[in-house]
Amino acid sequence: MQVRKALITAALRAQRHLPIQTLEDQNGDERSLLYLLAQEALNAGIKDIGVVICPGERERYREAAGELAQHITFIEQHDPRGYGHAIYCAREYTGDEAFLHIVGDHLFVSTGAQSCASRLVQVAQANDCAVSAVQPTRESQLPYYGCVGGRRVAGARGMYEIERVLEKPTPTVAEQELVVPGLRAGRYLCFFGMHVLPASIHGILAEQLDSRPGASINLSGALDELARRERYLALIADGTRYDVGVRYGMLVARLALALSGSQRDQVLTKLVELLAETGRNGEETTP
Amino acid sequence: MQVRKALITAALRAQRHLPIQTLEDQNGDERSLLYLLAQEALNAGIKDIGVVICPGERERYREAAGELAQHITFIEQHDPRGYGHAIYCAREYTGDEAFLHIVGDHLFVSTGAQSCASRLVQVAQANDCAVSAVQPTRESQLPYYGCVGGRRVAGARGMYEIERVLEKPTPTVAEQELVVPGLRAGRYLCFFGMHVLPASIHGILAEQLDSRPGASINLSGALDELARRERYLALIADGTRYDVGVRYGMLVARLALALSGSQRDQVLTKLVELLAETGRNGEETTP
Repeated sequence: MQVRKALITAALRAQRHLPIQTLEDQNGDERSLLYLLAQEALNAGIKDIGVVICPGERERYREAAGELAQHITFIEQHDPRGYGHAIYCAREYTGDEAFLHIVGDHLFVSTGAQSCASRLVQVAQANDCAVSAVQPTRESQLPYYGCVGGRRVAGARGMYEIERVLEKPTPTVAEQELVVPGLRAGRYLCFFGMHVLPASIHGILAEQLDSRPGASINLSGALDELARRERYLALIADGTRYDVGVRYGMLVARLALALSGSQRDQVLTKLVELLAETGRNGEETTP
Repeated sequence: MQVRKALITAALRAQRHLPIQTLEDQNGDERSLLYLLAQEALNAGIKDIGVVICPGERERYREAAGELAQHITFIEQHDPRGYGHAIYCAREYTGDEAFLHIVGDHLFVSTGAQSCASRLVQVAQANDCAVSAVQPTRESQLPYYGCVGGRRVAGARGMYEIERVLEKPTPTVAEQELVVPGLRAGRYLCFFGMHVLPASIHGILAEQLDSRPGASINLSGALDELARRERYLALIADGTRYDVGVRYGMLVARLALALSGSQRDQVLTKLVELLAETGRNGEETTP
């Protein structure tokens, strides 16, 4: 398996302003979220990037991508039938090849020497199968993520063979279906927001779209089916994902980037000043 | 003097993405910077808001303003000759009336019961003259602001009669020209980013533009001239301004809003989690 294309989904209408939001990267340079996501793919050696968008956003996003726009093909989702359908919209773009998929409403901060996407692509190519990045996640966070169950792959650090995929399971369901040996109690393997998917995913998505005419479909249902049909791995990501689509998500992501970058001390200093300022209610301003 | 119009300057090409950046307001709702600035004017009882923009940004900004767009008239600055010129571009819009001017690259957080803009308008109307909001500012911050010198108005809290205005003075020049009685040592009255300006400012700007053909002109030069010709007050603002155009400026402003709002505890909790996470380099992610 060779992974030569990437697919970023950013077609949720309510979040259409997200990819153009800017933040300081780990070097303190101001970048749009779309730029940073495209860079994640490029760092994994992928030069062809598809971005699924809602109609009418092409020009704004092109500008937000800056000099990385040359690598991007925009794909419009005209009939919004959910996350699974957004991926299906790119079936002609990805063709019969496996592809790296990155969600458009997360920011990724790698903590290992290799970037998350790069390691994911490497593992997928070496094992010639689909791989999803996952992260051990507290039970309380289950309402926000897709979640996998499976068993450890012997001799491979942080690697699992996926048997089940469930979208936002309740704690009770997770305890019955998704317990993974070796994790701390009350932790589950939730999606990190990055996958290498095989071309066969489009066939499964097509079946699901056909079987529920007009309904929205998510990706987890198709991945659950994929796990039944093919070898499908989970890989614990060396990094942290920040969901920037939730309240204060962008604030937390900005801070995380700033605090994990080269300007950490400067940012910490500002932070302490700010805590002091907002605590004292501007006492100094009225002499 | 009646102040019925407001003018927001957002025509700096390098910062044209700023007004469409979103952040959580003090209630945790997501708003664009342009929305928050327009709201500042509306809170001061002003329903006609002019926004000076660089050509081509009208639609993006209109969308960013949301339901407040109905109050906004966009004015394009075709010939970018600086901040003073941006204001001059609005001379037909403001006509022969005084107007509230708010800079487009700051965020304002009021700490008093009355909003900064509202108090400024009230003082301008009561005194029938130009008023600039100022803030006692450390000497080290002089390179970022316009700065005023003058004398206290007896019996009026935080009010000064302005005699000089200098843009980004050196500490030496500030010490010679801008010392203000009653401030702590090493502090100067720097602009807060909000003014009530009389219609006569356009005449002064026209003179300055004519006398320096093709050059860019700032506002401070015109305000210095205004101080020579008319009564012109400075008023210490009950609040804090955050320059969001500088590196980490938007991050600090977002945090300031979040920490001064109703969700302070929630944000502090996230902050502590994040400091712990970014400190331990994701140790927990590799079981």
